[in-house]
Amino acid sequence: MKNIAILGSTGSIGRNALAVVDAHADRVRVVGLAAGENAELFAEQIHRYRPRIVAMATAAALDSLGPTLPPDVIVGGAGREGLAAVAAHPDVDIVLCASAGTEALEAVLAGIEHGKTIALANKEVLVMAGGIVTEAAARRGVSVLPVDSEHNAIHQCLHGRPAGQLRRIVLTASGGPFRGRNTSDLSAVSASDALKHPTWRMGRKITIDSATLMNKGLEVIEARWLFGVGPSQIDVVVHPQSVVHSMIELTDGSVIAQLGVTDMRLPIQYAFSYPERWEAALPPLDLTAVGALEFQAPDMITFPCLALAYRALESERSLPVVLNAANEVAVAKFLEGRIGFTAIPEIIETTMRATTAPAPATLQDVRALDRWARDFSQELVRAVELKV
Amino acid sequence: MKNIAILGSTGSIGRNALAVVDAHADRVRVVGLAAGENAELFAEQIHRYRPRIVAMATAAALDSLGPTLPPDVIVGGAGREGLAAVAAHPDVDIVLCASAGTEALEAVLAGIEHGKTIALANKEVLVMAGGIVTEAAARRGVSVLPVDSEHNAIHQCLHGRPAGQLRRIVLTASGGPFRGRNTSDLSAVSASDALKHPTWRMGRKITIDSATLMNKGLEVIEARWLFGVGPSQIDVVVHPQSVVHSMIELTDGSVIAQLGVTDMRLPIQYAFSYPERWEAALPPLDLTAVGALEFQAPDMITFPCLALAYRALESERSLPVVLNAANEVAVAKFLEGRIGFTAIPEIIETTMRATTAPAPATLQDVRALDRWARDFSQELVRAVELKV
Repeated sequence: MKNIAILGSTGSIGRNALAVVDAHADRVRVVGLAAGENAELFAEQIHRYRPRIVAMATAAALDSLGPTLPPDVIVGGAGREGLAAVAAHPDVDIVLCASAGTEALEAVLAGIEHGKTIALANKEVLVMAGGIVTEAAARRGVSVLPVDSEHNAIHQCLHGRPAGQLRRIVLTASGGPFRGRNTSDLSAVSASDALKHPTWRMGRKITIDSATLMNKGLEVIEARWLFGVGPSQIDVVVHPQSVVHSMIELTDGSVIAQLGVTDMRLPIQYAFSYPERWEAALPPLDLTAVGALEFQAPDMITFPCLALAYRALESERSLPVVLNAANEVAVAKFLEGRIGFTAIPEIIETTMRATTAPAPATLQDVRALDRWARDFSQELVRAVELKV
Repeated sequence: MKNIAILGSTGSIGRNALAVVDAHADRVRVVGLAAGENAELFAEQIHRYRPRIVAMATAAALDSLGPTLPPDVIVGGAGREGLAAVAAHPDVDIVLCASAGTEALEAVLAGIEHGKTIALANKEVLVMAGGIVTEAAARRGVSVLPVDSEHNAIHQCLHGRPAGQLRRIVLTASGGPFRGRNTSDLSAVSASDALKHPTWRMGRKITIDSATLMNKGLEVIEARWLFGVGPSQIDVVVHPQSVVHSMIELTDGSVIAQLGVTDMRLPIQYAFSYPERWEAALPPLDLTAVGALEFQAPDMITFPCLALAYRALESERSLPVVLNAANEVAVAKFLEGRIGFTAIPEIIETTMRATTAPAPATLQDVRALDRWARDFSQELVRAVELKV
């Protein structure tokens, strides 16, 4: 029996993780849950899974939960502290980090320090603090298992192959809803256009990131930390069917790919079961029904976010933090209808150009740089805001 | 330094194997060579690679070689005995079995008995005597590494995964030159039509087997022995681009595929280097240049040979021997222009239906059944022979 803590249990990944728990109740048990502000759904989850410890984003959310809490449930606290308390709880074996953004950074480090296996469904943690997190995990001998379907695919393809056999990682990208468009097409697209992802049902932030290709850019940075490869060893290929989840190229030119149906329960289950592999009740992949798998080079002119991510990765460590912070600000404003789609990369690039900070050495440095980049990009947003 | 014996060095696989030796002369050395009757090329190979032992198919071929042999080269003998002497030579580490047909059966067993790693590029050995060969290999603790690109791909995909994680093997098939045709289209095709394989350059026998899909049928039987799976766990999918060399489906539905350029040097090098993996100087696979990978269900009505192979595998062990023998006879006669293309499966099926022999327990039984099936199908050929 593996004991799981889920950070972000009311989100898309969190709910899929609970479906995996339902399907394998004889093998996994929920001992910790943390959510944002959706107290209604969270209360239902608590009553159903009876975790030992819970946390929410704010004290107000926890208060609204209060009357419904079973008496034996520990309240870990609010915000980052609450997440960290859930991750560090002594009964937890695996921390599934599925909260959006950078809130779970301290919690992931707390989980690592307490020897928990980290199942990582959050990109920002490694983009912000990849060096700090992977060094801590190596020092504590803790596994960081990727749940993002692309990195999960790479993990499955590598399957313990020695690092010296790896020549290149090829991340596949669906291309998002605007594949094939050009920059002038994109100037007038709305948030609801951008939220129509062709192959995956996901949260709003990541769906916009898919439309800008920043999602793939964040994955490039993430891959650097998860697999210890340089930017020149990470390629992106657009694959609209999202059937090939990613690939590796080995030293002899042989390519190993992982394919599957597009269902997040599979990589979540993989992380819960690893190094075992459990049966899944999903329909198998039928390639003859798919018919054809297409591959194209990504269009980094129309979608500059991907090129910005490569540039950030090739630089000192400060730029990935800035890229991520500015992206979070810009995407939030785009979702609010305050800025246009093509303003997203402009805000990120201008913030990156304005960065003078050295590589952050500590989590405090990371947080300070993140704060600066958010403030700076907020100012930029004001300058380009649409009159709505 | 690994010492290699190549059985079938003047054939397509043999020449590719020598190219691999040329590229990795610091890692592999040729110590044994065996060829059919091409004495001119074989003499060149002997002078270039200076093996310690050689053999040819016939005493006459060896005689014609005689005057050119360096004095320190041992002549292992003619025919099956010669092949076995090369395979069993004490200096040999790896026996690459690349001779066509069933002549190398005794040599493979001799190699196994002497503890050599077997790199198997010949399908007929396992189709004829899969049980005998795999039992001997297991008893002696010897590895049988598949060189056929499909099985080599499966070996790369499995990469030591426990057997319990394997749900299904999916062998890809190019579909051959007649993909999309129907039975009436095929009644008038000639040997030269059938020799135009769309993606692989190979020997004549295997190219015809690709056109009938018998090649895939033999591979289904081979997969059963190499990977210990039943017929219901082996599927075939037509994939005209031959980029995905084959796939496995794991218990959770995840699919692992091996992709690569269509060059036999890669699986040969894999077998020579295993468990290491060496650099290869071939251009990498560029999926964006390929564009699309297509997948279709195989047409077992137009190409009955594949269905016959499944039927043989599902039966007692006698039928795969009969299928293979009747196929060798029918293909040879088709290549001579003596029978039509659609007569190939008819001859095989009729010979299978006439089989009453029990499962062969020994190599002698296998040889006797093979002899009977060849004689029987020769008789059938006479009945359907074209007037040329």
